[in-house]
Amino acid sequence: MSKLWGGRFAKNTDVMVEEFTSSISFDSRMYRQDIAGSIAHARMLAQCGIISQDDARLITDGLNDILADIEAGNFSFEVSLEDIHMNIEKRLTERIGPAGGRLHTARSRNDQVALDTHMYVREQVAAIGGLLFDLEQAVLDIANKYPETIMPGYTHLQRAQPILFAHHMLAYFFMFERDFRRLGGVWESADIMPLGAGALAGTTFPIDRELVASELKFGRIYENSIDAVSDRDYILEFLSFASILMMHLSRLSEEIILWSSTEFSFIELDDAHCTGSSIMPQKKNPDVAELVRGKTGRVFGHLMAMLTVAKGLPLAYNKDLQEDKEGLFDTIDTVKFSLTVYAAMLRGLKVNSGIMRQALKNDFSNATDMADYLVKKGLPFRQAHEVVGKCVAYCLNEHKTLADLSLAEFKQFSPLFDMDILEAITIETCVAARNSLGGTSPAQVRQAVTVAKSIMEKQQKHLDMYTKIKL
Amino acid sequence: MSKLWGGRFAKNTDVMVEEFTSSISFDSRMYRQDIAGSIAHARMLAQCGIISQDDARLITDGLNDILADIEAGNFSFEVSLEDIHMNIEKRLTERIGPAGGRLHTARSRNDQVALDTHMYVREQVAAIGGLLFDLEQAVLDIANKYPETIMPGYTHLQRAQPILFAHHMLAYFFMFERDFRRLGGVWESADIMPLGAGALAGTTFPIDRELVASELKFGRIYENSIDAVSDRDYILEFLSFASILMMHLSRLSEEIILWSSTEFSFIELDDAHCTGSSIMPQKKNPDVAELVRGKTGRVFGHLMAMLTVAKGLPLAYNKDLQEDKEGLFDTIDTVKFSLTVYAAMLRGLKVNSGIMRQALKNDFSNATDMADYLVKKGLPFRQAHEVVGKCVAYCLNEHKTLADLSLAEFKQFSPLFDMDILEAITIETCVAARNSLGGTSPAQVRQAVTVAKSIMEKQQKHLDMYTKIKL
Amino acid sequence: MSKLWGGRFAKNTDVMVEEFTSSISFDSRMYRQDIAGSIAHARMLAQCGIISQDDARLITDGLNDILADIEAGNFSFEVSLEDIHMNIEKRLTERIGPAGGRLHTARSRNDQVALDTHMYVREQVAAIGGLLFDLEQAVLDIANKYPETIMPGYTHLQRAQPILFAHHMLAYFFMFERDFRRLGGVWESADIMPLGAGALAGTTFPIDRELVASELKFGRIYENSIDAVSDRDYILEFLSFASILMMHLSRLSEEIILWSSTEFSFIELDDAHCTGSSIMPQKKNPDVAELVRGKTGRVFGHLMAMLTVAKGLPLAYNKDLQEDKEGLFDTIDTVKFSLTVYAAMLRGLKVNSGIMRQALKNDFSNATDMADYLVKKGLPFRQAHEVVGKCVAYCLNEHKTLADLSLAEFKQFSPLFDMDILEAITIETCVAARNSLGGTSPAQVRQAVTVAKSIMEKQQKHLDMYTKIKL
Amino acid sequence: MSKLWGGRFAKNTDVMVEEFTSSISFDSRMYRQDIAGSIAHARMLAQCGIISQDDARLITDGLNDILADIEAGNFSFEVSLEDIHMNIEKRLTERIGPAGGRLHTARSRNDQVALDTHMYVREQVAAIGGLLFDLEQAVLDIANKYPETIMPGYTHLQRAQPILFAHHMLAYFFMFERDFRRLGGVWESADIMPLGAGALAGTTFPIDRELVASELKFGRIYENSIDAVSDRDYILEFLSFASILMMHLSRLSEEIILWSSTEFSFIELDDAHCTGSSIMPQKKNPDVAELVRGKTGRVFGHLMAMLTVAKGLPLAYNKDLQEDKEGLFDTIDTVKFSLTVYAAMLRGLKVNSGIMRQALKNDFSNATDMADYLVKKGLPFRQAHEVVGKCVAYCLNEHKTLADLSLAEFKQFSPLFDMDILEAITIETCVAARNSLGGTSPAQVRQAVTVAKSIMEKQQKHLDMYTKIKL
Repeated sequence: MSKLWGGRFAKNTDVMVEEFTSSISFDSRMYRQDIAGSIAHARMLAQCGIISQDDARLITDGLNDILADIEAGNFSFEVSLEDIHMNIEKRLTERIGPAGGRLHTARSRNDQVALDTHMYVREQVAAIGGLLFDLEQAVLDIANKYPETIMPGYTHLQRAQPILFAHHMLAYFFMFERDFRRLGGVWESADIMPLGAGALAGTTFPIDRELVASELKFGRIYENSIDAVSDRDYILEFLSFASILMMHLSRLSEEIILWSSTEFSFIELDDAHCTGSSIMPQKKNPDVAELVRGKTGRVFGHLMAMLTVAKGLPLAYNKDLQEDKEGLFDTIDTVKFSLTVYAAMLRGLKVNSGIMRQALKNDFSNATDMADYLVKKGLPFRQAHEVVGKCVAYCLNEHKTLADLSLAEFKQFSPLFDMDILEAITIETCVAARNSLGGTSPAQVRQAVTVAKSIMEKQQKHLDMYTKIKL
Repeated sequence: MSKLWGGRFAKNTDVMVEEFTSSISFDSRMYRQDIAGSIAHARMLAQCGIISQDDARLITDGLNDILADIEAGNFSFEVSLEDIHMNIEKRLTERIGPAGGRLHTARSRNDQVALDTHMYVREQVAAIGGLLFDLEQAVLDIANKYPETIMPGYTHLQRAQPILFAHHMLAYFFMFERDFRRLGGVWESADIMPLGAGALAGTTFPIDRELVASELKFGRIYENSIDAVSDRDYILEFLSFASILMMHLSRLSEEIILWSSTEFSFIELDDAHCTGSSIMPQKKNPDVAELVRGKTGRVFGHLMAMLTVAKGLPLAYNKDLQEDKEGLFDTIDTVKFSLTVYAAMLRGLKVNSGIMRQALKNDFSNATDMADYLVKKGLPFRQAHEVVGKCVAYCLNEHKTLADLSLAEFKQFSPLFDMDILEAITIETCVAARNSLGGTSPAQVRQAVTVAKSIMEKQQKHLDMYTKIKL
Repeated sequence: MSKLWGGRFAKNTDVMVEEFTSSISFDSRMYRQDIAGSIAHARMLAQCGIISQDDARLITDGLNDILADIEAGNFSFEVSLEDIHMNIEKRLTERIGPAGGRLHTARSRNDQVALDTHMYVREQVAAIGGLLFDLEQAVLDIANKYPETIMPGYTHLQRAQPILFAHHMLAYFFMFERDFRRLGGVWESADIMPLGAGALAGTTFPIDRELVASELKFGRIYENSIDAVSDRDYILEFLSFASILMMHLSRLSEEIILWSSTEFSFIELDDAHCTGSSIMPQKKNPDVAELVRGKTGRVFGHLMAMLTVAKGLPLAYNKDLQEDKEGLFDTIDTVKFSLTVYAAMLRGLKVNSGIMRQALKNDFSNATDMADYLVKKGLPFRQAHEVVGKCVAYCLNEHKTLADLSLAEFKQFSPLFDMDILEAITIETCVAARNSLGGTSPAQVRQAVTVAKSIMEKQQKHLDMYTKIKL
Repeated sequence: MSKLWGGRFAKNTDVMVEEFTSSISFDSRMYRQDIAGSIAHARMLAQCGIISQDDARLITDGLNDILADIEAGNFSFEVSLEDIHMNIEKRLTERIGPAGGRLHTARSRNDQVALDTHMYVREQVAAIGGLLFDLEQAVLDIANKYPETIMPGYTHLQRAQPILFAHHMLAYFFMFERDFRRLGGVWESADIMPLGAGALAGTTFPIDRELVASELKFGRIYENSIDAVSDRDYILEFLSFASILMMHLSRLSEEIILWSSTEFSFIELDDAHCTGSSIMPQKKNPDVAELVRGKTGRVFGHLMAMLTVAKGLPLAYNKDLQEDKEGLFDTIDTVKFSLTVYAAMLRGLKVNSGIMRQALKNDFSNATDMADYLVKKGLPFRQAHEVVGKCVAYCLNEHKTLADLSLAEFKQFSPLFDMDILEAITIETCVAARNSLGGTSPAQVRQAVTVAKSIMEKQQKHLDMYTKIKL
């Protein structure tokens, strides 16, 4: 098929090269953005007297027809037309004649694809923001559902200190909150209008970029045309955001997998979120959590890919940059899917509070409290730590827990121990006593929930702003 | 050497394991932060009545003495003491006796190392912000120094359209501006105070975290103790920021290397920023640009390393997280070095304006203008593009440029060509005509410089805020 | 739809979870391997008396029918059936009744998918080996086509010493040769038969793994059933191989892009392997080279993704491992495409020998030879280097080349210079003089071509072996 | 300080640039290789009549003196001399006069550094091979120490089927075996001699590369001089090898961490390989395993860094390639440390066989065997799976295990159940019954140990070959 740029060429493109260099298989998903951008461009051209109002009307109507055809499934994309831009422009010209040939006045595919991608990313930021918000809500819900459940807190996967289950879950809330803030940074980088940059240097036509920006609801305009066509920072920022978010989900996944094991048995996932084995009839596997943990690698890979692609490229546009989209799109899909299934899975999850509490009966999670007890009686912390360490070693030898010791035994380790020691190291006391700001005591956790709610109120305003750009 | 946590252990740590798990070889660089944090902690403990004022004074004086010793080079760090925290605490106790043993009351190394690292990153953000600001200035300086230099603009490394050299350089200004904004995001994530989180759950002592935060000039406090000790987002954000920044520098490096080649000869680097060959006496190599391009890989690697480390870790602290520092520190050093040498190299760089202008004599960079000319005479852009494409093919065959064609020749391709065509496609006309917002015309570039200056004024305020945290 | 593993479950899988965890959208490409593996398995089961010969026949015929249907496009894969294995097994049972239910005896999807993937990778190794071999041939062809073309050799992208163009191209031959050797390593890791490992522990049925291995032409069998189902080394090795290969292609791409620039003009690509611009009528862009350079990032990303996925997974199979396929498949496609277009592009490429030779007229590429000249007259190399360095500085000031200097001028720098100096530093002399083993002299390059040919003869034998496994 | 290449330069190198581009801080670790290479080079130059035997002797003696000084700590490296090569050459010339200036005849730093690095990598391959071999032995030892210990085998971290602990450990043996084979690939790529390539094109002197190769015990010689100085494949292959090896160790680490948790309690690590907490007196943390898991990220990062560095570099040498060393050296150190501590940790590890066996009492790991039982009685596997799945669901409801069911209960699910069912699903029967090749039965595991031993005998021969290159 003859190319729209073929004038200078003596020979057709090799079919294999056509297929290799074509992007239509993946950039067709931006058809709505491409058409909206073209309509805004055509209107502006007419407004500025660069094309006639009649042509603009023909173009606009033609594009809207094409949009309807695509959405109805009546549009076939062709590899030989390279990309979404050429596919649509060619069809437009077939339908409306010469006016179609005027649409590309004062623009290039370089700024056109940049425009489409910016618009696409903005919309996805809005969608992902909504899903992240919902996941935060699911975390709050489960924290609120089990306000008094106590579980062992871990460091190094060794029992460390007893904590509220709600406190543990809220740690994830605050991770997601930072993710939401970073998503706002992506928005800022995506919400810049590149059209008008032309191939790289601007255009000789008296265009009005503010008009296009306003029609497409962009907050800012690229100040430098070369930057406009070669910038992929907003994609890299999105991939960085997504990598950190997936890393958070991978941590939660690891815990859900651990807690679902027979050894922990802290939770039970809903049957609807698990799958079985083709061979072992007893199996109920936490596939969703495993798969999200696995997909973390995929997203990291896309980030690394895009960084590598951009490394060392001279200005302005290079074909390498066409590689920006597939990893971006796959990351968007992965993140949206992961957020959605995660919110559902958390909502379906059942916590075995009894087993969690039971676990704390036979361990030494209260050892720090015993040291703190001695400190409050005047012993320097380092000495108190040493005393309790020896106590623990003694218990391990005797197959006892700290709570099993008699006062006489306690006093062998330090004369400072007194009758009140046992009360000081009950699990409930340990939890309630960590009442410093941000600690695990019930009072602090209630306070954290309040903070979380007020954060979400502010986030809601951002979401409202994001969704306003819907065309 | 006996460990500060050895009470429970029957056997000493294997020496090889000590060396493997020790972090003192790299975390000693945070000694100032560690001591400042400990002093703030001790003062707060006294203020809250958890230790006596006398003990607090002893501790503070002792720590200041240690600080002086370290800065004077009179302090030897020991591997068997594992890390900067234990090295300092042990020495403190040797000097001031039992009071030293009270310093670790109500804190853990988990929140202590988090505090040190947050403080360290904040300081480095301030320093890097300053260097980035200076590099922006160097870019503006060179743009201002050559306001009228015209060069070929490239896409696909093929000559595309003539542009102002200043316009090209300003593209980098706007990249660095986005880097500066992202650095602000790192600041926000680093400026959160973790101390008081204890091992993971808060502390049983009636501490005052606000007091510590205020003394150490933190803007916010972690709301959740588990999050406080396991969060490494600020490090990942820094590494993402650094990766994108280095990617920008790698692009500029590629161009500097290209422009320094005999084939381009667009610029000459100062002898002071180049090195020679051990064997080829004529060589003058753009090593700095090459090395910065190479170091981009190093920074990407550190980002990937940290993402991998954090992936799938259950809460709260795990020893894997000790791996957060070396890559961070190396990235900080790499970024600071790269920014510094780059600003110097740009300031020493000589632009060969004549060669740049000469290059445009023999190419087809003005072909788009010829098409635009036809559009302005009424031809749809697509047809104009086709006409000019054929014209170019004709010239290539005849070994001519567009400017060499006679009016008769022009008219063979389209009757719309007229006497004014030659004037319409002079290089100077082409540049001046791209006068759309953000375009390469001298007027637009002057405007962009004004914008850049006002951006830097706002950045200066951020820098002032960043440097205020210096203790 | 009811699951083949649903006995233990009280509730159906959530539809969204089904879609999230299903792999049929990508693993369906292994249908040939899956069916061949099942047929071999069924035959073995019958041979060992585990199922009847009649059942085996029914199964075999049923599977062959399904194979025919798939290849004819008459088979619709269903997401709710999760993967290629279940899709085929379910259809089989619908067609042949209870016998279909016996096929999964003594195996699990864990060893089944491992088998399919090993077989798939082996076939792709064979295909890629063939393409790599062809690319080597294309490199040899172009080296042979221009045996006398001299070009500037570069280090740091600065002219260094004159070399034969053929010598330069042969450097790539030897890179590809190493790639071919590494591909052999992938073969060794892929050519191990996992079936019979069951879910993870082997099977209670008296199977004969050697029989299956022999029918499917495997060289080795996994010695440990847990390793068999959790090993992904062969995929990681493939991705490492592919990353290094793409890195090589990215270097060649960079050179092709440079050489195609107006500034270098060393080569001209065929129109069939370039594309134009939607706006700039004169443009002819080396898109293929740029895209291959860009796709390097994509392959690096897949390697990083898979490494991250596998990191920290406990034995044996985890759902995370389902993420092994998409990156693998995309890498296979990318590598095959890149090798194919590259061989075509090299074959279509025209070398501008005259321009390359002309470039050497005005530079100092012969400076090393001048130093060597002095060394041969007795000066220590370091002093000779210093003398020539000063000579070059003098020429730069005087706008001369070394060949422009008079003997009197030469003698100002060293009395050792004599009449023969000019002959000693002609470009042709410089090239011919580098006659050490592996050097750029015509004699050495001819020798290298001979070596290359004998290497390819050995590679041919490997290819023959690889293709023998075709079923 | 005046540079050895300074003749052409009018100005000194900026001090900051000197520091930035210098490599002496890390390449000094290759001093032995550098000196050995220089001695071999000097001897060859004399042998070929390029320098005198007297000069060669002076050079050799001078270099040996320098070697002695370095090893005695009496040599100070200077940043201004850039690298190990210049540091040694400069000192040599200071000591022996003009003869020192002849050493660099017929070579360049480009081939010199390539030689040093190849030699260094070869030596490290030998050392790492030995450590890997020892780790394999440690794995075999622990497998042999607990030949009858039965543990739950897992998929998806859910109990799957009972297996021998020895079988589980042997899975790691076979991973390490593949690592050993890949290490052999690194050897092949490192064992190629680059010296004689000069800067990039060979040399004009009549050198004898075979002589140097033979003296330095290289198996092969680079056939192309450009390839010789720009090839970094052997480093990338090493990093790929190391990444896969670390991935294996990260999996074992994950398991060791899980098994050390209170919830699993399957093993106990020796006190010597754990550390405690500064605040929680009861803690005994599996730091070594965590740190190795963490360091996996570091090694992945170095691989990604080096791939990125090499991407898109034109031939031949570019300064970017100086970035090849720090990541390589750090990876070597990390791998050696990890292998060493791992072998020690495994040797000190205590297995709680009783707890492992006890764990199997209350789960459904024998469900597959129950299905197999029905198959052997004639039921198609899919139906048997369904029957057992329902049985498991029943047990879960009734809080029973399969072994708790009465024959009457069994028969409710299928009439095929008979008296022998209970015997068929005892844990010991389940393990013994998986007697297929590579399965977990004691007989198969004994056979696997035999195979492992014979593999190690072959590996020993490789190790012998590797260590023969020691100079």
